Amino acid sequence: MSKQLQQAATEDSHRLDALLNARSVAVVGASADPAKISGRPIAYMLARGYAGAIYPVNPGRQEVQGLRCYPSLAAIGKPVDLAIIGTAAAQVETAVLEGIASGVKAFVIFSSGFAELNEAGRVLQQRLTQLAQEHDVAIVGPNCLGIANAGTGLIATFTTALESHALRQGRFSFVSQSGALGAYWMDIVLRSGIGFSHWITTGNECNVDAAEAIDFLVSDPNTEVIGLYIEGIRRSQAFRHALDRAARAGKPVIAIKAGRSSAGAAAAASHTGALAGDDALYDACLSQHGALRVESLTEMMDAARLLLHKATPLGPKLAVMTVSGGAGVLIADACEPRGLQLPPLKPGIENALMPVLPSFVHPANPLDITGNVLQDTPMIGRAMQCLAADKDTHAIVLFIGMMHSIADAFVEALSQARKQVHCPIVVIWVGALESSIQALEAVGIPVFLDIPQATNAMSRCLWAAGAQNAIAARPATPDLAEIRDTGRTAATLSEWNGKQLLSSQTAVAMPKGWLLQEDGPLPADLSFPLVAKLQSPQLLHKSDAGGVILRIQDEEALQAAAQRLFQLGHELQLPVQGVLVEQMLPFDHELLLGLRRDARFGPVLTIARGGVEAELDPDVVNLLLPASQPDIAQAIERLRCARLLHGFRGQAGADIGSLSARIAELCSWFTEQSLQELEINPLAIRGNNAWALDALITPYAS
Amino acid sequence: MSKQLQQAATEDSHRLDALLNARSVAVVGASADPAKISGRPIAYMLARGYAGAIYPVNPGRQEVQGLRCYPSLAAIGKPVDLAIIGTAAAQVETAVLEGIASGVKAFVIFSSGFAELNEAGRVLQQRLTQLAQEHDVAIVGPNCLGIANAGTGLIATFTTALESHALRQGRFSFVSQSGALGAYWMDIVLRSGIGFSHWITTGNECNVDAAEAIDFLVSDPNTEVIGLYIEGIRRSQAFRHALDRAARAGKPVIAIKAGRSSAGAAAAASHTGALAGDDALYDACLSQHGALRVESLTEMMDAARLLLHKATPLGPKLAVMTVSGGAGVLIADACEPRGLQLPPLKPGIENALMPVLPSFVHPANPLDITGNVLQDTPMIGRAMQCLAADKDTHAIVLFIGMMHSIADAFVEALSQARKQVHCPIVVIWVGALESSIQALEAVGIPVFLDIPQATNAMSRCLWAAGAQNAIAARPATPDLAEIRDTGRTAATLSEWNGKQLLSSQTAVAMPKGWLLQEDGPLPADLSFPLVAKLQSPQLLHKSDAGGVILRIQDEEALQAAAQRLFQLGHELQLPVQGVLVEQMLPFDHELLLGLRRDARFGPVLTIARGGVEAELDPDVVNLLLPASQPDIAQAIERLRCARLLHGFRGQAGADIGSLSARIAELCSWFTEQSLQELEINPLAIRGNNAWALDALITPYAS
Repeated sequence: MSKQLQQAATEDSHRLDALLNARSVAVVGASADPAKISGRPIAYMLARGYAGAIYPVNPGRQEVQGLRCYPSLAAIGKPVDLAIIGTAAAQVETAVLEGIASGVKAFVIFSSGFAELNEAGRVLQQRLTQLAQEHDVAIVGPNCLGIANAGTGLIATFTTALESHALRQGRFSFVSQSGALGAYWMDIVLRSGIGFSHWITTGNECNVDAAEAIDFLVSDPNTEVIGLYIEGIRRSQAFRHALDRAARAGKPVIAIKAGRSSAGAAAAASHTGALAGDDALYDACLSQHGALRVESLTEMMDAARLLLHKATPLGPKLAVMTVSGGAGVLIADACEPRGLQLPPLKPGIENALMPVLPSFVHPANPLDITGNVLQDTPMIGRAMQCLAADKDTHAIVLFIGMMHSIADAFVEALSQARKQVHCPIVVIWVGALESSIQALEAVGIPVFLDIPQATNAMSRCLWAAGAQNAIAARPATPDLAEIRDTGRTAATLSEWNGKQLLSSQTAVAMPKGWLLQEDGPLPADLSFPLVAKLQSPQLLHKSDAGGVILRIQDEEALQAAAQRLFQLGHELQLPVQGVLVEQMLPFDHELLLGLRRDARFGPVLTIARGGVEAELDPDVVNLLLPASQPDIAQAIERLRCARLLHGFRGQAGADIGSLSARIAELCSWFTEQSLQELEINPLAIRGNNAWALDALITPYAS
Repeated sequence: MSKQLQQAATEDSHRLDALLNARSVAVVGASADPAKISGRPIAYMLARGYAGAIYPVNPGRQEVQGLRCYPSLAAIGKPVDLAIIGTAAAQVETAVLEGIASGVKAFVIFSSGFAELNEAGRVLQQRLTQLAQEHDVAIVGPNCLGIANAGTGLIATFTTALESHALRQGRFSFVSQSGALGAYWMDIVLRSGIGFSHWITTGNECNVDAAEAIDFLVSDPNTEVIGLYIEGIRRSQAFRHALDRAARAGKPVIAIKAGRSSAGAAAAASHTGALAGDDALYDACLSQHGALRVESLTEMMDAARLLLHKATPLGPKLAVMTVSGGAGVLIADACEPRGLQLPPLKPGIENALMPVLPSFVHPANPLDITGNVLQDTPMIGRAMQCLAADKDTHAIVLFIGMMHSIADAFVEALSQARKQVHCPIVVIWVGALESSIQALEAVGIPVFLDIPQATNAMSRCLWAAGAQNAIAARPATPDLAEIRDTGRTAATLSEWNGKQLLSSQTAVAMPKGWLLQEDGPLPADLSFPLVAKLQSPQLLHKSDAGGVILRIQDEEALQAAAQRLFQLGHELQLPVQGVLVEQMLPFDHELLLGLRRDARFGPVLTIARGGVEAELDPDVVNLLLPASQPDIAQAIERLRCARLLHGFRGQAGADIGSLSARIAELCSWFTEQSLQELEINPLAIRGNNAWALDALITPYAS
């Protein structure tokens, strides 16, 4: 086995090794035409010097592109790790069966005409899924653009992105549910010189899916940063597990998730449903597991540039050097809204800088080193050493414009500085030459072409580093069973029934209440003011229907209110359970608390601000469960209204610690019940008290 | 005069014609070294074939760079439009005086050592200002990088941005208060092939300032889009006037204003001050006059790309075509938050598309034309014609990835389509070749390299087009006198005195109120509930000091409250004017209304949401005055809380028409008074009633 192939193996053996580090590849239906789909992989591998064996398979040919061609997979007579299949959909199953019989361990299926086309295709694809499971082989696709490994020259793809670029190994890898986006990504990383380690397009995911591909990349010693394009994931728990492993391995994941806008369009029956739509849960999933969500390949590349050069700021405090005062102000402007800071220089640092700078420059942050650097480029390095002497300098950002005549001197000065300075150095170079960018990035200094690209990348990567560190410091999340279809729901319980359930099984507090019957007696121990609410399993939105009467001050008013509500129930022809009368308690804050089983992600907690304000401009966080009390407390802190809960401008605050502990208990309870949804809206809060003022519970049909 | 020079003249003669369309240039202190500051302009103009006369002036030389050299400006003996001066600061005045005596009409002064350096320099610079005014000559600088005119090859600058690029005339012009930013801009427009018409760096602005430069560009027939970099403008009314003229001429202005972040740092005594900081007023000024504010040169170029090709969508509705389904979803995702829409195709359009598309493609928006275009590129044009047949298609966006092998066919198909389609066509081409970009832009189709850049540019330019159209539809704003230093302020009036002033001079309504004196009798006609507020000119923030007692229900409680407040006044050792007792009126909404005279921008109206919500997350609009009732109504609609004012979810709304009319009246009154500030907080609103519940008025010292 060649050294390249040996090195390519993952540290512990992985199910996808035979696929992504294949040592031998057969191409079924191999074409002599290097422009055909089944000719390209062979042509690409020959041109890029694939380190393993290539076996064209085609009963009609003796030789393909200069290689011996075999009539069948069985005829090869040597071990084959991977077979590439690009035949018509109807022939694919036969080819896979033949491969399995011959000991092939993995398959890449380019062919389309499966689940993406029609029901017959779905059935064909289902058979591939079964074959993979029964024989423990890895199948990528069908309907995919294949895979590639830049380290070994394994190119099991027909993408045209390889037409115009040499292969280049790098430390960036990509998993894509879209072949086209995969191709664009490959074009960009090869053109820019970033290179890649592994590239995987998963197509219809009959067997190998995005989660498993990520899991493989976490184990791949050549992958340091993982890019991801997803449209919809199938196994949410495996996906979460893979992201969690990536975080613990210190491998940042940068993800594009398509379909943000469609989320809003989905009609949703409950508030929680509207606040926790499909895309919002992807958001929650990615951020909970430390994956950085970006909007475009451009943003992904900007972040990757910083991550690959290990130039993520160590914290939010930047020291900025510029060759133009205006640029310094623009950088400060761009930093503030992105949570990056330019703290004033400490006196010691100022003093150290004085002799280094030209006499007319005053040490400051941002530091305008002026066009004088044209005469004295080594001054850059000396100034950087001064700035880095402050251990609170989390990164040094240098802004340059053009200066092509002294580009080489700049590169030289910065390369020296890179060796002497402990913190990351980031360069923003407007009008940089491609050769300067390559030279600086070769020594670990990422170069951005304008200010927002750099500040966005720094701010995002800083977030990702913090999130990954927090995950690494927590115990690993348990391996959870995949979410199964959870069946039909039963009718939503009336508020009274829902509250009875909560009272009997949980520690959720609620106001003292009584269920009145029509013409029944009033309870003896009433304490006013009271609220009266019509109870019927068919009336979920009581307020909208006039089914709630607030601020009842005495028995006479209560009698009248009850009468009116029973009357309303008759008018609306509802099955009336009674009128719930509850004490009205004074409170300071109101939240919406939702727990729901999502078909994709399983149990989800939603916390949102309650009341009109929140309807005007939703203020919401979602957490996939399980979530610990600290997770929940942190989620509450992410609400915009968190400042209100802390007691804003002398108003009463809430006890977020005890609140989050109670919510955590309720989450555990919910997870074990056969409930589809539980919504407490509002949860009224005063100090360390929290009362469910209303509750809607929807169980599953038994 | 050459044809070039004739064409360069502005339509009506402009004071800056002699400067920016100079037909002859003298270079004082001309250097034979083309790398020296006073050698470069000559070398640049010779190399780029400046169409006018160049006169080097240097008593020590007979000849400079092959041109006859003159001992003095006077010795030239022919008319000189423009003299370039790069001598030491101390010699500048003499050179200018000599030029004026010789009939030179304009000067560009590179020299530094003026107001940017010290007080002596400020005095030197002040003399230049006086000379310019007395002799009606135009002086650019000092301490500037000069000017350039790509149409005539006039290069009165020493920027290195011209070292590596040929001059290229375009329809984009730039005004910059920073030489460095100016240089970067020129580098970008020359490198990208966009080119430029005029380029002006204004330096210390002793005479020609950014406002006048913009005003010139509005008159320049070769300028279609104006770029702007400002740090601080001197004549706000001239600046507003120039922006207004640009809007009426249909010339978009794209502005970078540096210093956004410092705004927050300025300590501000009043709420209005904090809500209407310096940068917020620049924001108001730019948006009120239809200028598009961007954060970076990259964003400026993206917007300019669309504007220069007249490819701003005609409205928000886009028809999107892609060669990849994933990209279509990403475009839809990027459009929604930016106010761009992808409406479903109308049935007629769908039917028309059917025969044009491959059989397996279903007509939709976004329309995935699939990789099939590789076989049939003319299909693109046919599909575009179908989409454009819907007059509600405001632009067609085509997404392509790589496809370098058929790039020429794409360009050909799109060039044809450009002739047949009425609406703008915008191309997003991931991995586009430079040659394809050039070819498409040559036929008026802008090309973006990724989705966010295109959608940001479309959304921003759509806003700018709407804003400019709205301005063009309004009567021109009157020429306003420049803001002068408005003198010292007197003490802020007590609430009682302020309200007395408002009552007597304006139509502002307020609750019925009485001023009680200590141990004085209670008024006879009280109607409860009441509020009591301690009145003292030294107590502005009454609530914070406990000087306000709310919800007083009867005479006894009122007596007690008054007593407590007088007691408080004594404890705080305040000069007590009395206790203001007012009726408490029920209301639905509260706003903060601020009027203030800003030292730079003059009278400014601030409208903000009142109450705790707004302090948590400010919701504010600023308007430079004068502003009409419709302006004010539109500003109110821009508040996030506008939906509340419209009556959100069945709650009571407010009458924005009558509210804005009253505010407009108050603005007119304020503008004529000698008042520094008037703050009504809150302005309580119910239906078409609005009451000033509190008022702070600060007059100028007389």
